[in-house]
Amino acid sequence: MEKKDINVLEQMQNMTIDLNSKVMLEKAEKDGVETMYKRKLGYKVQCGFGLQGICCRNCGMGPCRISAKTPRGLCGADEHTIVGRNYARMCAGGAAAHSDHARDITHTLALTTPGGDYQIKEPEKLKDFAQFLGIEVGDKDIYDLAHEVAEECLMEFGRPFGTSKMMKRATQARQDLWKELGIEVRAIDREIATVMHATHIGCCADIESLVLTGMRCSLGDWVGSSIGTILSDIMFGTPKPVHTEANLNVLAGNNVNIILHGHEPTLSEMIVAASELPEMQELAKEVGADGITLSGICCTGNELTMRHGIKIAGDFHQQELAIITGSVEAMIVDVQCIFPSLAELSTHYHTKFITTSPKARITGSQYMEFHEDTAMEDAKTIVREAIMNFKNRDASKVLVPDLKSEGVVGFSENAIVGKLNNVVNTQIDDMDTLKPLIDVLASGVIRGVVGVVGCNNAKTPSNYNHLTLIKELIKNDFLVVTTGCGASVAAKNGLMLKENAKKYAGKGLATVCELVDIPPVLHLGSCVDNSRIINICTLVAQSLGMEVPDLPVAGSAPEWMSEKAIAIGTYVVANGIDTYLGVMPPVTGSSRAVEILCGELKDKVGACFHVNEDAIELAKMIMDDIEAKRPHFEELYQEKVLNKRLAEVAAE
Amino acid sequence: MEKKDINVLEQMQNMTIDLNSKVMLEKAEKDGVETMYKRKLGYKVQCGFGLQGICCRNCGMGPCRISAKTPRGLCGADEHTIVGRNYARMCAGGAAAHSDHARDITHTLALTTPGGDYQIKEPEKLKDFAQFLGIEVGDKDIYDLAHEVAEECLMEFGRPFGTSKMMKRATQARQDLWKELGIEVRAIDREIATVMHATHIGCCADIESLVLTGMRCSLGDWVGSSIGTILSDIMFGTPKPVHTEANLNVLAGNNVNIILHGHEPTLSEMIVAASELPEMQELAKEVGADGITLSGICCTGNELTMRHGIKIAGDFHQQELAIITGSVEAMIVDVQCIFPSLAELSTHYHTKFITTSPKARITGSQYMEFHEDTAMEDAKTIVREAIMNFKNRDASKVLVPDLKSEGVVGFSENAIVGKLNNVVNTQIDDMDTLKPLIDVLASGVIRGVVGVVGCNNAKTPSNYNHLTLIKELIKNDFLVVTTGCGASVAAKNGLMLKENAKKYAGKGLATVCELVDIPPVLHLGSCVDNSRIINICTLVAQSLGMEVPDLPVAGSAPEWMSEKAIAIGTYVVANGIDTYLGVMPPVTGSSRAVEILCGELKDKVGACFHVNEDAIELAKMIMDDIEAKRPHFEELYQEKVLNKRLAEVAAE
Repeated sequence: MEKKDINVLEQMQNMTIDLNSKVMLEKAEKDGVETMYKRKLGYKVQCGFGLQGICCRNCGMGPCRISAKTPRGLCGADEHTIVGRNYARMCAGGAAAHSDHARDITHTLALTTPGGDYQIKEPEKLKDFAQFLGIEVGDKDIYDLAHEVAEECLMEFGRPFGTSKMMKRATQARQDLWKELGIEVRAIDREIATVMHATHIGCCADIESLVLTGMRCSLGDWVGSSIGTILSDIMFGTPKPVHTEANLNVLAGNNVNIILHGHEPTLSEMIVAASELPEMQELAKEVGADGITLSGICCTGNELTMRHGIKIAGDFHQQELAIITGSVEAMIVDVQCIFPSLAELSTHYHTKFITTSPKARITGSQYMEFHEDTAMEDAKTIVREAIMNFKNRDASKVLVPDLKSEGVVGFSENAIVGKLNNVVNTQIDDMDTLKPLIDVLASGVIRGVVGVVGCNNAKTPSNYNHLTLIKELIKNDFLVVTTGCGASVAAKNGLMLKENAKKYAGKGLATVCELVDIPPVLHLGSCVDNSRIINICTLVAQSLGMEVPDLPVAGSAPEWMSEKAIAIGTYVVANGIDTYLGVMPPVTGSSRAVEILCGELKDKVGACFHVNEDAIELAKMIMDDIEAKRPHFEELYQEKVLNKRLAEVAAE
Repeated sequence: MEKKDINVLEQMQNMTIDLNSKVMLEKAEKDGVETMYKRKLGYKVQCGFGLQGICCRNCGMGPCRISAKTPRGLCGADEHTIVGRNYARMCAGGAAAHSDHARDITHTLALTTPGGDYQIKEPEKLKDFAQFLGIEVGDKDIYDLAHEVAEECLMEFGRPFGTSKMMKRATQARQDLWKELGIEVRAIDREIATVMHATHIGCCADIESLVLTGMRCSLGDWVGSSIGTILSDIMFGTPKPVHTEANLNVLAGNNVNIILHGHEPTLSEMIVAASELPEMQELAKEVGADGITLSGICCTGNELTMRHGIKIAGDFHQQELAIITGSVEAMIVDVQCIFPSLAELSTHYHTKFITTSPKARITGSQYMEFHEDTAMEDAKTIVREAIMNFKNRDASKVLVPDLKSEGVVGFSENAIVGKLNNVVNTQIDDMDTLKPLIDVLASGVIRGVVGVVGCNNAKTPSNYNHLTLIKELIKNDFLVVTTGCGASVAAKNGLMLKENAKKYAGKGLATVCELVDIPPVLHLGSCVDNSRIINICTLVAQSLGMEVPDLPVAGSAPEWMSEKAIAIGTYVVANGIDTYLGVMPPVTGSSRAVEILCGELKDKVGACFHVNEDAIELAKMIMDDIEAKRPHFEELYQEKVLNKRLAEVAAE
């Protein structure tokens, strides 16, 4: 390579800390193909107006942008209005993505039949959830009940009167607070429509109101995500600890490589089932492969690894690099976080880039629409297509990098509490089952629990913020729970192995890991599964008679990138959990937006956003804030435990 | 004034052709207050990326924008994907605004009671609509029926399965076409959510699919708008011809001036009722006024003028100028198209700027939340507030410009057909009632019907495109039907007076105006009432056994500005009516987007967009295209009439 090219390669390699990725970037250069890292080089300077959120394109008189010469848009919107509207629309984009995911899952639940493509794997969870929704369970046929639950869940999207039933998953105090603030979710889709309406030209021009409108919509994201998680567990099984491997090396060998990328388990669960059929295994051998390797990218990867131990090929920033290994027969995608670049990129290799969702058609892809009502047939067709492509693999183009890590994933809330009670998954409904978790937290052996979640962002070196933050936290005895691409980073770096706890975790956390048989970083699933984190926090708070903001917990998205992340961050804050971002959202153009989001919300909902683009400092902020919460938490804990004991004595 | 100031004033005055507005701009300069016209001077160069639609802010890795150096966004999105996503989101913004309007109307219908604040004024229309929705009418109490209709309409927003019932308002062929294209509306809010999801990072990256997704959502706008129109008629009365006046001079005199600005009739109808109460009239006299003048701006103005003959103070671009007259006691607003600048502006005068909707709070306004369930009480409080402010009017600050025009407005579809049959409003359900309309069209006395609708846009001199286009059309015997700010322009310029038909209209049209007693430009209402235009076209097509694209009709938004206009334009095209824009939408960055929107859609749905920023040329395009359609239309007409006669003879 010429010096100029080496310089380009170095610059690109500096944009990721993943060693496999660095290898693949060199191959990309040799192959003459473009990646996000290459495109980033062209974007050294991004539009300052957009970065600050002060560009408005919400009407056709614009675009308008705030500058010294133009302190207001043509309609008179100031920087606060413009930033607020853009922020609220990000919440709407995120809520739409997560909730539409949940809608598809719900429609799938409506299709479940005994012996059908989709079945009920967790009847008890279904019954519990039906009861929660106010549906009489009795001795109804489990599939009749499932269909009733599906209908009720679909009403959560379009309920014409009243408010969402899922609100009741919060503590009573929080429900009251939301009511007082006017941010109770009425229906998910309605909240999205309301944001789009309120941000239309000539509507809301009040930053406080815009933030709250965005927050209500984000709570809609939480409602949708919760439905997505619960129904996925019901149909596909509640995750429990399972061994996996992670990073591009999982593609090594002579197997047919099928990568599943996207978000919804409806498709990928069927692909798993189809690829396990003897006819498919035989077909793979017929075409000269040793077998079939399924692996996942993004949240589809998380959904599959936590339920089946299916390997994680990589994270969001590695989707192109996986194809560049030259060893992928098919990348099958559904929705969200799919680079459109995969279409052009895959033409340089033998990889079939197969899109399946009418919501995410991509020009240049092979479109094989997936229908839940013909799921298995569709899945078989797709898997066959992948297998038959094995013969086109060109050995001279194959380079699979060396590294992968092992890990244990699948820590649903039931699995976590189960572990602490020394059983496989357990019900979590009272103080008894939660006691071990509460004890380690209250005693201070574990200082706090931090959810480190979210994407990779080209604004930071891939994985750096995640890895740095997580390591800092566990080193200091903070248990980390993680989802999404944050989870992939942890898995890729061996942080999901109990055996590594001693190496990376502080003494307290390491002891807990050893005693309870958990890794120092717990894989809770995909991005909709952030609802699990909220669920545990709420249950712990309820069981202690506390409020969520009292708990020594925090959320962080150190490399967030998507609108979904904004919606998640906002509902986490709305649930009373402080949220720490490693990338500045496009709100700095409005001093009021920053004051509200990073300060005043604390008074309103008990939590707010915190931003620091230095991962070490971000870690310190989180730990300091949680430590500052501990005395109050411990005091409350003493009080509650004491009260309980006194009550017990009195009752005797 | 100094020369520099005069130059500024001249530049501003050149941005409008309204003579009253020019006067007010001079006063604005004298008063030292800012208007949109002043702000526009700062925006001589707008961001080229935004103008072309090739700026993407849909994720936190961006903003990205397409240039020679960066032909793709970081994710690989090309110009087609970015333009398509932005376009689809505009459709979503528009559909959200119109449909949310309809939702509020529907919730209001659910609150109707005999003798209550809201009542049923058109029981027959209610029954017809109930039947259309598949609700059994029988001898149900009219209010019970109303509440049933309300529930059914609310399901149109959130129906969990199947498709919208309102689809049946189209011809069967069109319904089949939509089904084939996959653009049948399932539920309004769901379509908005789907757009927000499909345009999220990593979802749809196919321009054809994005346009169709935007189109389905826009059909959701049509569904919502139709519901809004029909239910407004049911509760507030179907408009019939009524005299009005238009332009800022309606504010002259010693009355308390209350301006109603925004869109939804729920609030404004109550304000009308409240201000007519003897106690309010007396209070006005007590504070020294002669009475109360209500007037309207934007679509609230249209809603009120068509049902009550309430005067039109001005259009979208005159909202600031109205306050600058110094004669407005209160400007009461609900949602959409309200300049946030009114808050600061009103502090320079005595005007109370009163916001009423939680969806459109504006910093610096006086917030008096309006609730439909306490409507009359709320309205009285607001009107009282306005009256009591009369004493603060400062004569030295008052300057009301001289001009106003008279006109006749209120041409609902029933009123138009009624006029042609020489009766007040009639049912329009068969060939007999539609025959006179069809006859004048088929004979060629009227060459075609053009809907000239939509906003004012700072990219063109206010009112110029509207007025130029309308005059060209009527001069050449094209009947113009109009809504929204287009209607205000026509009213302000005397084009809604039959007496002016001879002066402005061609011989054929003038004769029809004379014979049938209609003006050459018919006021059909507010922007949701574009649904009336589609309704007439569909009924005419059905009655002739033709399809909508066969008819000599067109739609035009020569000064469109809002996302609502994009959604309307798209549903008009989806309904098979060619739509002509006088301002280029932000899609030119994608050659494919332009090819599809302005060409290929013709093959798909029988109509497409056409853009010309020169109003004279735009008029010529419309007329040429309609003339080109006429031979086929006339041939079909002969055929259908002949067939009918033969059938009649055969039957005898």
